[in-house]
Amino acid sequence: MFNFTYANNTVIHFGTEQIAKLKSAITKGQKVLLAYGGGSIKNNGVYQQVLDALSKHEVVEFSGIEPNPSYETTMKAVELVKKESVDFILAVGGGSVIDGCKFIAAAAKFDGEPWDILAKNAPVKDAVPLGVVLTLPATGSESNSFAVVSKLATKDKFAFGSPKVQPLFAVLDPSVMASLPERQLTNGIVDAYVHIMEQYLTYDVNAKVQDRFAEGLLLTLIEEGPKVFDNADNEIRANIMWSATMALNGLIGVGVPQDWSTHGIGHEITALYGLDHAQTLAIILPRMMWEMRAEKQDKLLQYAERVWQITDGDNEQCIKLAIEKTEAFFRSVKMGTRFSDYQLGYEVVEPLVAQLERHQQVAMGETKAVTLPRSRSIITESL
Amino acid sequence: MFNFTYANNTVIHFGTEQIAKLKSAITKGQKVLLAYGGGSIKNNGVYQQVLDALSKHEVVEFSGIEPNPSYETTMKAVELVKKESVDFILAVGGGSVIDGCKFIAAAAKFDGEPWDILAKNAPVKDAVPLGVVLTLPATGSESNSFAVVSKLATKDKFAFGSPKVQPLFAVLDPSVMASLPERQLTNGIVDAYVHIMEQYLTYDVNAKVQDRFAEGLLLTLIEEGPKVFDNADNEIRANIMWSATMALNGLIGVGVPQDWSTHGIGHEITALYGLDHAQTLAIILPRMMWEMRAEKQDKLLQYAERVWQITDGDNEQCIKLAIEKTEAFFRSVKMGTRFSDYQLGYEVVEPLVAQLERHQQVAMGETKAVTLPRSRSIITESL
Repeated sequence: MFNFTYANNTVIHFGTEQIAKLKSAITKGQKVLLAYGGGSIKNNGVYQQVLDALSKHEVVEFSGIEPNPSYETTMKAVELVKKESVDFILAVGGGSVIDGCKFIAAAAKFDGEPWDILAKNAPVKDAVPLGVVLTLPATGSESNSFAVVSKLATKDKFAFGSPKVQPLFAVLDPSVMASLPERQLTNGIVDAYVHIMEQYLTYDVNAKVQDRFAEGLLLTLIEEGPKVFDNADNEIRANIMWSATMALNGLIGVGVPQDWSTHGIGHEITALYGLDHAQTLAIILPRMMWEMRAEKQDKLLQYAERVWQITDGDNEQCIKLAIEKTEAFFRSVKMGTRFSDYQLGYEVVEPLVAQLERHQQVAMGETKAVTLPRSRSIITESL
Repeated sequence: MFNFTYANNTVIHFGTEQIAKLKSAITKGQKVLLAYGGGSIKNNGVYQQVLDALSKHEVVEFSGIEPNPSYETTMKAVELVKKESVDFILAVGGGSVIDGCKFIAAAAKFDGEPWDILAKNAPVKDAVPLGVVLTLPATGSESNSFAVVSKLATKDKFAFGSPKVQPLFAVLDPSVMASLPERQLTNGIVDAYVHIMEQYLTYDVNAKVQDRFAEGLLLTLIEEGPKVFDNADNEIRANIMWSATMALNGLIGVGVPQDWSTHGIGHEITALYGLDHAQTLAIILPRMMWEMRAEKQDKLLQYAERVWQITDGDNEQCIKLAIEKTEAFFRSVKMGTRFSDYQLGYEVVEPLVAQLERHQQVAMGETKAVTLPRSRSIITESL
């Protein structure tokens, strides 16, 4: 295990009817920016619950934060925050809304050109305090300090992080998942699964607690994921929601190497071809696992045994079967796992490789082993 | 899963040479109370590392916080904190030193008679800020907000808790475990194990993440515990140390019922017969599991299967074997599991039952099913 420093300050309010806690979670007298996406929260009752809880607060609204939140949109919210002297930002939505709000929170207090936060990693010294009502379990953004924001004009994605944009609290009410479209549930489950794999499937550093926790989250998603679509009860939703939060709140990633090369390729697929983030991960991960089977052998065998109970056969057979099971799991939660599932073919290969090169993604992963030729091979095998 | 609110603000600095981080972890200019126990930290180098890190801080020392820290001793430190206008308390030690320092921190700022914090659950509205250098993994006190303090005069143990006494940071350097006596290593492993069981072995509420995490910690302690005594390397120590912290930092206990009846009986054994806390838990837990096998059947079978890979036989056989394995594990880490291991016999039964009655411990556990007659039976079977 490597040395690490870890804390997670976000207060989690988990369960049904927890949205009412906003009343006391946000300091009395604070002016609140209520920020959300396309308006689905107005149909599922969340919007009204939030307004009811904030009936004693002054509320300013900002809607229209899009999937893959853009610099262009969020900067409009930054103007509003400044003009209205907003004291607190409440993100009501999934990872995109939360990520967008993190940038808004930082940009509104940034002394200089906010673009530098994204493009030049300019340090975030202050931010408007932020809270979350999560409507879509997936990204873990509700209790971490990272965000991804895109620039529409150039199709570039930028990540930034700062303890200053870690949400002060996150309300996790699994019952709000009842109204989610199937595609969003699918995306959330796969996104969480791959987040875990990026932190788990590396080289072994004998971090037994982190490994067991990661495996426990994977097993929970495998057990509960396929059940969430039809007549799911709240317990299933609760287990998925809590798994997705724990998948990327930092805990399973402390003291271990991390990969993130599947995300590296996936981001380019979203940028060039508009696939949902999780769709790209489900396409790439199986072939990434196979391509890296030498470097990741110990962990792949551990994954095969502990997550899929695969012990019969030689190493390569066990690994192959574990990858097949992984891909079958993605399909069981209604996710495509090939470019061809999205009517894409050989034409994507060179543009994606070129994009990776342009972004200097030429030595990705925990051992920098994912070179451009290997990325090309992974993409080609994933058609 | 039940609704819950959870946060853990303690910043963990984990790994070798992390003690040096005290220099920046404690605000410049603050006057620090360096509090410790019997002085073992002067022999293992921890004391000198702490002083080196705090060379720019003004430091006042208080030593002699005993195992099962006493009201009498800690109140002497409270006087010192007030007299010296201490700004920050640094607890250097195991659970007893940390628990004692939590009471010192609360008592020094308490408006009224500090005894009321323990005896009357008087709310703690303020406390001196607190940090920890952990020398003995066991209690989890380094990153939670609870403490147990005893009154020597009456042999009573009192628990209290407040977010105000949650340590701001905890330094976890596993290399300091190298100099621990065998008995303390044994105590720490068993203490952590039983903490997990108190939160895990209840009735099933379908909290799959919490269950998997608890099982992961148990499996880690089972795998690493017996290896820590002879020629252990730092990785083994690190896994045990991190397991013990995660065992009682609140995470595996959110949203689930909790038991704590083994602790209920155990506290009385320590109070009357002076056994170490963990020694008492190892005596009681196996018989508690058997006595409660009807109420806890689902979880006992899950424990048998997932932790001990026991699936053959009828329910009662599986449960019996899982309990035997648990007791054998305790013995494998050099812990006694019977009163007779401590030259105690039938004479303990009625005094312990009387003590439980005196403390109104007449309906313990997650379903209040541990009545006095059942406690008597558990104690008798544990001789």
